[in-house]
Amino acid sequence: MKQYYYECFSCKFQFTKKQIENELLYLCPNCGTAEKNKPLVGVLNIFYDYKSISKEIDKKNFLNLTPGKFWLYPQLWPLEYSSHGDSVSIKGITESQLDKIETISSPLVKIERDKNELLIFDDTRNPTLSYKDRASALVALKALQLGIKEISAASTGNAGSSLAGICARLDIKAHIFVPEKIPLGKRIQIQSFGANIYLVNGDYDQAFDLCLEISKAKGWYNRNTAYNPLTTEGKKSAAFDMFIALQGKLPDYIFISVGDGVIISGIYKGLWELKQLGWIKELPKLIAVQASGSNALIRFIKQKKFVYKPAHTIADSIHAGAPRNLYMAADVVTKTNGLAVSVTDSEILDSQRKSAEEFGLLVEPAAAASFAGYLKLLKTEVISAKATSLLMLTGNGLKDQQSLTTWNEEPNSFSTNEWKQILKVK
Amino acid sequence: MKQYYYECFSCKFQFTKKQIENELLYLCPNCGTAEKNKPLVGVLNIFYDYKSISKEIDKKNFLNLTPGKFWLYPQLWPLEYSSHGDSVSIKGITESQLDKIETISSPLVKIERDKNELLIFDDTRNPTLSYKDRASALVALKALQLGIKEISAASTGNAGSSLAGICARLDIKAHIFVPEKIPLGKRIQIQSFGANIYLVNGDYDQAFDLCLEISKAKGWYNRNTAYNPLTTEGKKSAAFDMFIALQGKLPDYIFISVGDGVIISGIYKGLWELKQLGWIKELPKLIAVQASGSNALIRFIKQKKFVYKPAHTIADSIHAGAPRNLYMAADVVTKTNGLAVSVTDSEILDSQRKSAEEFGLLVEPAAAASFAGYLKLLKTEVISAKATSLLMLTGNGLKDQQSLTTWNEEPNSFSTNEWKQILKVK
Repeated sequence: MKQYYYECFSCKFQFTKKQIENELLYLCPNCGTAEKNKPLVGVLNIFYDYKSISKEIDKKNFLNLTPGKFWLYPQLWPLEYSSHGDSVSIKGITESQLDKIETISSPLVKIERDKNELLIFDDTRNPTLSYKDRASALVALKALQLGIKEISAASTGNAGSSLAGICARLDIKAHIFVPEKIPLGKRIQIQSFGANIYLVNGDYDQAFDLCLEISKAKGWYNRNTAYNPLTTEGKKSAAFDMFIALQGKLPDYIFISVGDGVIISGIYKGLWELKQLGWIKELPKLIAVQASGSNALIRFIKQKKFVYKPAHTIADSIHAGAPRNLYMAADVVTKTNGLAVSVTDSEILDSQRKSAEEFGLLVEPAAAASFAGYLKLLKTEVISAKATSLLMLTGNGLKDQQSLTTWNEEPNSFSTNEWKQILKVK
Repeated sequence: MKQYYYECFSCKFQFTKKQIENELLYLCPNCGTAEKNKPLVGVLNIFYDYKSISKEIDKKNFLNLTPGKFWLYPQLWPLEYSSHGDSVSIKGITESQLDKIETISSPLVKIERDKNELLIFDDTRNPTLSYKDRASALVALKALQLGIKEISAASTGNAGSSLAGICARLDIKAHIFVPEKIPLGKRIQIQSFGANIYLVNGDYDQAFDLCLEISKAKGWYNRNTAYNPLTTEGKKSAAFDMFIALQGKLPDYIFISVGDGVIISGIYKGLWELKQLGWIKELPKLIAVQASGSNALIRFIKQKKFVYKPAHTIADSIHAGAPRNLYMAADVVTKTNGLAVSVTDSEILDSQRKSAEEFGLLVEPAAAASFAGYLKLLKTEVISAKATSLLMLTGNGLKDQQSLTTWNEEPNSFSTNEWKQILKVK
């Protein structure tokens, strides 16, 4: 029995592992196209034999795992592994290598807010301080198993700094294409980790297309989000970690900031698999939150067609004029009876401040957007405060300090004697 | 039987909990003095009834704990608690509050380096991304138990951003005194968390003295490092977490960057307690690493007397002309047969780069200093590569991005067509 197979999201054709991996294909060989400034067609999903897996993995044992170590249940990942009795090992990967890519093991923060409980999934303390480590880790392990030593990615900043950091940990060379307006924190991560950085005089959409072209010519393994099927797949681990951290009791709503639409698709995939395994009955409703200046998904859901419009938002991580995984993202919002909502940059910055002051969680603008979306739906009574909501916080605030200076004035400096006068001491 | 008592490090007088806590004393009531630009005299230690505790806590059970949750063994902390059978609760503190202050639960990274194993204790992914959260958490819990709602601290940046973040999580007001040259990342954390920030036109030593004076006048609970005995005490949790993560097999050497000397004293305290409990036979040798421009401890150990000298180093977190816990730090180095070593700013920056490139760990200069000290002792063959060494990494690199720009040039930006030409594609 085959462990897993690929299926095209667009034409639904199925492909064996061999058909895709032997030639290092990314999109569907039948219908896949990657055009400039357009969503991808033919994004591949990976499916497993859930019936067998549900016999192999026990729900109770699964709930006893520690979040952050996805390789402990290799049956659900497109990796070569072997099992010896109760223990499993990922072929060609040492335990020490796995330790280095572990994501946060205590992601859940419970907040009392206006007498309601709000769940927060804090992915800002992963190895490189963003959600993207989930995808980078899987892609990097796959590269090691395939004997690949160079990986490339286009990025607004987080995917790139993540890939650079994970690659430094696993001794792989990384090539990162980023828009020139990348926040300093993310750029300095990429450079410090020793990756090659390619600053593009243009926006993320242009960096994406350039990276595809160069990588193809150079033969680099490409981690462009959505394009490489292991990115959506890697991002599903958050759903599993959430399931473990909440001991099976999933929330009614999950708020997810959406740029390219890969995180929301990944979370859906993980939740859907939990249902296939018979471990949950219903999926939480997925709420896609976009910046009002980068709202392609919202427009697509309304107008049923994609129209390219350059994006403008302070939330660089969800800045995407042409969300590459647009069609899948729209599909998962619909399938879960969720919805897509937009928030202004000013609402995003206000939520960033609230998150730091109220929760002690300093997040980047894109992460704060999920909180802004929650506040908006709460205010307009689209959701009830009594429903359980979970916010995905996807990136640390220190990655983009510029955004924080917009609402934190530079304080004045005084001598010790001046301070005593000001504070009326002595 | 009393749970714990205070003992003066200088005069060895002992005091009951009541004597110290009822009047909110910090230094020894007998001999304590806090003078400008001088190490503190009369720093208090906290001791417990180890004989009883060793009967209450089983080593094997202890080793099965998850690092990061120090309150799971309240017998070893100066907090009020109650036990009901197997479970304990910290009086007046909810489980949700405890979850919010948990430090990293997977701190240990094992590195293969020149065929030797190097252990790295990564404290850069704590709630506010530094080691200081260990002390802030204990101080804040104590404040809650004492009904205190305002805490102050002087800081080069990390202790302040830590206290601000922990206080935001626990709904306590924080007042932070910092030198005006504080790195942007740390300042922006303090401000974003909603703390009051007092920028002092002077260095850390002056901010320290000012904070003491203002806090006394205002009646704020003071978290100045070393001055508040719960800071050294809080920092001992790293020794316990290390013990758990290494399953009892401690390294031969622990490399610790030293500014005020509180982290090294805290780690010693934890290790010493492990010995009192009968769980280890010998303590690892503690290697204190200082910046050559801020080397008061090294000079003190050599000359047997303290001479104030203003500090100069790029490693702001260990910038201290008058290390407040100097005497205790010197004592623990001696007691473990360790030593103190200095590294130049250039060696620190070089280690910062190596740490990012080789390990994928982006740390601030003060954290990189421990690695620089290790490389120095290895090179001069003071330690053998075959001995097991552990490096404490105390703060995240994104807290001080300025230091990273010293060795990462700003890259040039090119158009997509220019990149194709440069990379010779098409």
